[in-house]
Formats: sequence, C-alpha cells, structure tokens
Amino acid sequence: MGGHPFYRFCRSALEDIRKQGRYRQFTPLARQADRFPVYEQGGDVQAVAAADGREVVVWSANDYLGMGVEPAVVEAAIAAIREHGAGAGGTRNIAGTSPLHAALEAELADLHGKEAGLLFVSGYVSNQASLQAILTSMPGWICFSDRQNHASMIAGIKGARGASCVIFEHNDLADLEAKLAAAPKDAPKLIAFESVYSMDGDIADIAATCALARKYGAMTYLDEVHAVGLYGPEGAGVARRDGVADQVDIIEGTLAKGFGVHGGYVTGSAELIDYLRSVASGFIFTTALPPSVVAAALASVRLVRRESWRRERLFARVAAFRGRLRAAGVPFMETPSHIVPIPVGDADRCTEISRRLLSEYGLYATPINYPTVPRGTERLRLTPGPFHTDAMMDDMVAALARLLGVSADRHTEAA
Amino acid sequence: MGGHPFYRFCRSALEDIRKQGRYRQFTPLARQADRFPVYEQGGDVQAVAAADGREVVVWSANDYLGMGVEPAVVEAAIAAIREHGAGAGGTRNIAGTSPLHAALEAELADLHGKEAGLLFVSGYVSNQASLQAILTSMPGWICFSDRQNHASMIAGIKGARGASCVIFEHNDLADLEAKLAAAPKDAPKLIAFESVYSMDGDIADIAATCALARKYGAMTYLDEVHAVGLYGPEGAGVARRDGVADQVDIIEGTLAKGFGVHGGYVTGSAELIDYLRSVASGFIFTTALPPSVVAAALASVRLVRRESWRRERLFARVAAFRGRLRAAGVPFMETPSHIVPIPVGDADRCTEISRRLLSEYGLYATPINYPTVPRGTERLRLTPGPFHTDAMMDDMVAALARLLGVSADRHTEAA
Ligand SMILES: Cc1ncc(COP(=O)(O)O)c(C=O)c1O
Ligand SMILES: Cc1ncc(COP(=O)(O)O)c(C=O)c1O
Repeated sequence: MGGHPFYRFCRSALEDIRKQGRYRQFTPLARQADRFPVYEQGGDVQAVAAADGREVVVWSANDYLGMGVEPAVVEAAIAAIREHGAGAGGTRNIAGTSPLHAALEAELADLHGKEAGLLFVSGYVSNQASLQAILTSMPGWICFSDRQNHASMIAGIKGARGASCVIFEHNDLADLEAKLAAAPKDAPKLIAFESVYSMDGDIADIAATCALARKYGAMTYLDEVHAVGLYGPEGAGVARRDGVADQVDIIEGTLAKGFGVHGGYVTGSAELIDYLRSVASGFIFTTALPPSVVAAALASVRLVRRESWRRERLFARVAAFRGRLRAAGVPFMETPSHIVPIPVGDADRCTEISRRLLSEYGLYATPINYPTVPRGTERLRLTPGPFHTDAMMDDMVAALARLLGVSADRHTEAA
Repeated sequence: MGGHPFYRFCRSALEDIRKQGRYRQFTPLARQADRFPVYEQGGDVQAVAAADGREVVVWSANDYLGMGVEPAVVEAAIAAIREHGAGAGGTRNIAGTSPLHAALEAELADLHGKEAGLLFVSGYVSNQASLQAILTSMPGWICFSDRQNHASMIAGIKGARGASCVIFEHNDLADLEAKLAAAPKDAPKLIAFESVYSMDGDIADIAATCALARKYGAMTYLDEVHAVGLYGPEGAGVARRDGVADQVDIIEGTLAKGFGVHGGYVTGSAELIDYLRSVASGFIFTTALPPSVVAAALASVRLVRRESWRRERLFARVAAFRGRLRAAGVPFMETPSHIVPIPVGDADRCTEISRRLLSEYGLYATPINYPTVPRGTERLRLTPGPFHTDAMMDDMVAALARLLGVSADRHTEAA
C-alpha cells in the first residue's frame, strides 16, 4: 500500500490547496447551550469536559435563531432519546419510521401550504436526491439552474445523466427568460433556484420567476434553506412572505439552520412527494433520522411558527450591527437579508484575519474562500443573531476595524 | 400548477409501482428504549405518547446489538444535548466542528487500524461522496464494482463522470481477476466491495480480493456497514477478523447499525482522508452531525470495543433461531452471517405475509422487494439480536410456519 498513484496524487493536491491559501483547518468549538452564542475552544474532549475552556463568541453559526439551544427543543430531544433510544435503528422502510417522522412531515407540509412533506438526513441530501430523481424520471428534462445554486443542487442536477442543464446568470430574469424561450417547447422544464443566497445574502424574485415558469410551462424548485424560520409569517420562508408559496411546485428546506436541529426536507403535491418517497435512492437506502432529532425539529418548527419575537429580534440585531459597522467605517456588503459579508478579497488574508480574531480577540468568524465563493471575493461571513449583545457587537466591530486597518480618522469621523 | 407533465408522470408511475406489488407503506413503529426489541405501533404522535399503544416485537431492526438503547449511549447523548444543544449549528468548516467530532474520528481510525477517519451525515453519504471524490480525482480511473454493491456505492461510482465502471459478478474472484487482467495496465484502479452483503447475508473473501488488488496494482474500498460492531476483535469488522484490515486502503462504515446511533465514516491513510476532507462535496457543504449524535456514537464505539458479550450473544441467538426454524421446517437461506432471510419469491405475497405477521401476531418483519433485491427473490429479512428471547423466537417460528403453510406433519416430524 502507499504505492498506488492516488497516494501521490493526494499529497500533491493537498500541497496545491495549501499554496493557494485555501487549506481548511477546522477550529474545534464546543457550543455552550446555556450561553449561546458563546462557545468554548478546545482541541480535545478533555478540554470540553473541563469548564475552563477558553470562551469564544461565535459570529458564523447558521443556527440563526438559537433554536438548537431553546429549552423546549432540548427537552423534546431528551424525552425522545429516553423513550426511543439514540438512533432510528433502520431505514424508513425497515422499521425506521416512527410516528414522529410522519408528524414532522405533516407539520412541514402545513408550514409551506403543501399537501405533503418528506424528510431526508440533511438538506444536502434532500436537494441532491430529489433533483436527481425528478430529472431522471422522464426523458428530455431541461433544468434551468441559477449560476449561484448550492453544491447540493448542482450534485442532484449533474447526477441526472439524461437531463440537460442550462445555467442562467444569478438572479437574472431576463437571461432566464431568454433561455426558457430558446428551449424546445415541449421538453419538460424545471427552474431550480434559492430564495436567500447564503454567501452574498441576496434574495431571488420568486414571484417573477414563477410567472416565467407559468409562461413557459416549467416547474419550480425552490431552496429555502437560509430562509425557513426567519422570513414570512410563521417563519415559512420568502415564498410565503411574498405571497407566492402556492406557485412554487417544490419547496425544499433544512432543519439544521433556522430550526437549529438537523435534517432536510422537501414539500409539494401528495403524488409528487409520494413518487420521490418511492424512487429517490438517497431517501430509500439510508437509516432514518433518529427519533430524537425528529422530535427536537418538530418542537422547534412549532415554536418558530407560534412565536415571532426571535426573528424580529434577529433583524433588529442585524440592523444594529450594520449601524455600528457603518459608524466605524468597516466595509460590508449591503444585503436585503440577515447575512453580513465582510469583503476581504484574498484567501491568505481572509484566513489570517479569522485566525487573529480568534487568537487575539476570542471572536470566531469563518473565512469563506474558494471553492465556496469565487476567487477574489473571499470574505468573512457574519450572521448576527438575537442573542448577540451590544457589548459583543462593539467587540467585533472594534476588532474588525483594527484588523482590516480601517483608519482611526475615519473611525472618529463616522462615529 | 398540476398542468406540468411531471404530475401525470408521477400518477402513472405510482400506479405501476402499485400494480407490481412494490408500493411501500411505511409502518409507524415507536421503539421502546427500555423494552427493545419491543416497539409500539401507532399512527400518530398521540398514540406514542399514550402508554397503551399496541406492542410489536420487531425482527428487522438494523440496530443489531441494541446499542441505541444502551444506558451509557443514551446518557452520553443526553449530556451532550444539555451541554451543546440539539444541532451542530454549522458545517464542519463553519463553526460546526466540536472536539467531539475530532475525538470520534480518531476513535474510528484506531478501531480500523488506520491513520485517520472522517465523519459524514450517513453511511450512504460516506460512500457516495468518497467514491465520487476519489474517482473524479485523476483521469482514467476504472472502478471494479461487485454486482451486488449497495445503492450508495453505485451512486458514488455513477456520479464520477470521467471514470469507467466494470461490474464483476458477485463475490466472484475469477471474474474479478479476468476483468482486472483485461484492463489497461497503467490506469488507476479501485476495487469497491462489501464485507457482509446485507440482503443475502454472504461475506466476501477480503484477503483474496486484496491479493488480487496487489497483483494488479488496484486500491481497495471496503464497505463494512453490516459488519462493524459485530465481527472481529473489538467489533472492528470482517477485515480485522480475517487479519487483513491493513491491506484494505479505505474501510467505510456506519454508526447507525451495529453501533446503534447515526452517521457514517471512512478511514484510511492520513493524506487520503485529508484529501477527501478537502474536496468531497457531500462532506463540505452540509451541516455537521449534531454533537449529541457524535457523543452517543463515541460512547457506543468505546463500549463495543471493550465488551464482546453482545456480539457473542447475538451469534448465539442467531444459531438458536436457525435451530428452531429448521426444527419447524420453515425454509430460510443459510448464511455465514447474522442475517436470516426467509425466501418468499413474490412481492404481493411477501407484503401480505408481513402485513399478517403484524396484524395477527404483533410481529414485525419487513418485506424486501424489488428494487432492493431482484424480482423473484423477494423475502422477509430477519435480524435476531441479543435481546430476542426464546419465547419471542417460538412466536415468530410458529407464525411463519402458519403463514408460509409449512405442513403440520413436517412440523411434528422435524420437532
Ligand atoms: C443553499 C443551501 N442548500 C442546502 C444546504 C444543505 O443543508 P444541510 O446543511 O441541512 O445539509 C446548504 C448548506 O449547508 C445551503 O447553503
Ligand atoms: C451496504 C450498505 N452501505 C451503506 C448503507 C448506508 O448506511 P446508512 O444507513 O448509515 O446511510 C447501507 C444501509 O443503509 C448498506 O446496507
């Protein structure tokens, strides 16, 4: 062993990645449920067990509302573990479907105003398995895919060998229409897009996209992964906020971001969902989500639907944070969403600023480098949440001003 | 909406599936942690909450050792939820790596005698993402894939567009060698296979496969999903049992079957694993496993390594069950593994026997129909575990004898 050329390949590929400044070093951070967004930094389990790990304020979590640490969610998970054990013990078809799975699927369908829902082990798998199953169902499918669609959608679309894929420019309705118009009239068409694009924080015009879909006889597949829990009545997402959820054929989401737990799902018409349930490989041939994960997600979705204060406070805190950045002269990308990208533009510098934030200031913001974003647009991606305090914001803004070299003059003048 | 041809397609595809007798109706079963393998049957959450759901003895769970209901595993999960919350809150790179993730990866590497391990959200994703990443790394890869490989491996191999795939007959070393010999000498080669094939319960000759790999300069990728926890010293799998784990380049496993929790993993050389960590889409672009799942899995793996009584008892119970089936004249497939398939040979009949076992006897055994197994080989797949009692076995054998129409004569004679 070790003689196969793949071993040499790995070595030189890793060297290249390092040279390009995009080698990823994961930072072990232990979330502290009772002090979110405070985590403890620790390289090993001992450090986690000890109460004296170094405190870090995390600014990059995707548990946007802190639902994963909500007592009702935590207690639901614990009760389900005590009652049903730690895992599902089987695939959905092989003794792995609990009544909780069925209840959560019904709840998610109701959330999006659809007839049915289907759970997957992750949002990634929900996209990949569903898109691949749809696009291999009939001959001649053409998928119109936004250029900035997430890797999981791309995996599903590329995985559908018989289908063709037409990429339209990001959120560019004119380009989408031109491409729809140029396609054979009677080919089955699907438009795949996201509501909130998580790296740039911009939001698609769902109503206009659905209008084009109607005009050209296309179906619509919408990823609301970064929107569910946060936007619209009951946190049902941007399609619901814009009053067009009923015009979207398939709404996909995750339970791991706004809902703070784990798993993914799609919702749509009863027959369409039953078809995916019956044929999607990534759904069928895998162990079902643990009952405790499902119970926690169910508690979270119900709480999010009932109480709007968390998402209201999230947006208020985002506004407060932007105000402070502006006052301090720290550059950031203005977005219509809750996401605050701080442009850096170079992988090495981005990684270095993140490292110094952590080591010198006890602040964590992930460097976002290629391939997650195009080269030259490297950034820190900040996600202020309802539990980031004024003091935490002051710390982060001061640290960023220092590390980005924002001039003291500008700082004084703007403040 | 509803006008798109896909809706009509779904309707008629579902009709076909129904006509072929392979429409799957999931049976909602609530596992009772303190009475495993007893579950409660219930169609809704209320029925689960009430203590008076109907009791069912489950014979198809893949939590082979009952690790998911072990008090130490349950308590590890609960402690982690209390400390860290219900979800990871981010991808591995974006604040989702806890010290627990690193500890479990190290533990799994050690279990298999490898330098490094990598966690995925499921065994399905570990196979799909790893094989696809490997087979798209260099030009010209040829993957030699056992005809009965699992859907998740097939997904990864098919997903690697540039690579070619050569299917060899199931566990047929002569066919594998002929195909290796016929392939271009300098093409990078990978042999992908399983140790325990879960539907037929047969076991690959790993030593001989590795010898062929050496002879023809191929790498080996072994799925030990149905073996980890059960076979070999410390439950490290069949490769370890056979003393050849060091000859396998990549050992893949799940945390959701023998270990009773959730998630999947690969282990291998440090650089190979670091490469997968750095490039595999299905690893990078998805929320990390929840810390509670990781903590439970870590507790489970450690317990399984330390204590052999569960796997010894499992095999003793399997032998006891086979003895009873034989005595009663109930046909079953003899396998060298812990899996006991009862051949039925027709999808409708298989589904019907499973339905009657449940409704008339309170026993659950999943019907295994196409596409999981070839048409004509439909079966019930039974997995006796350490906690199936003599009385439970007598019930199942009597019910099977009745429903399969095994003659009373034969029964008396054999007994
Ligand atoms: C747009 C989008 N879709 C899907 C996913 C995958 O969701 P999950 O983390 O639940 O796998 C992500 C991120 O992880 C995402 O950003
Ligand atoms: C051989 C084999 N590999 C992989 C998997 C997938 O593992 P998981 O259930 O963890 O997704 C399964 C079954 O589910 C399997 O039977």
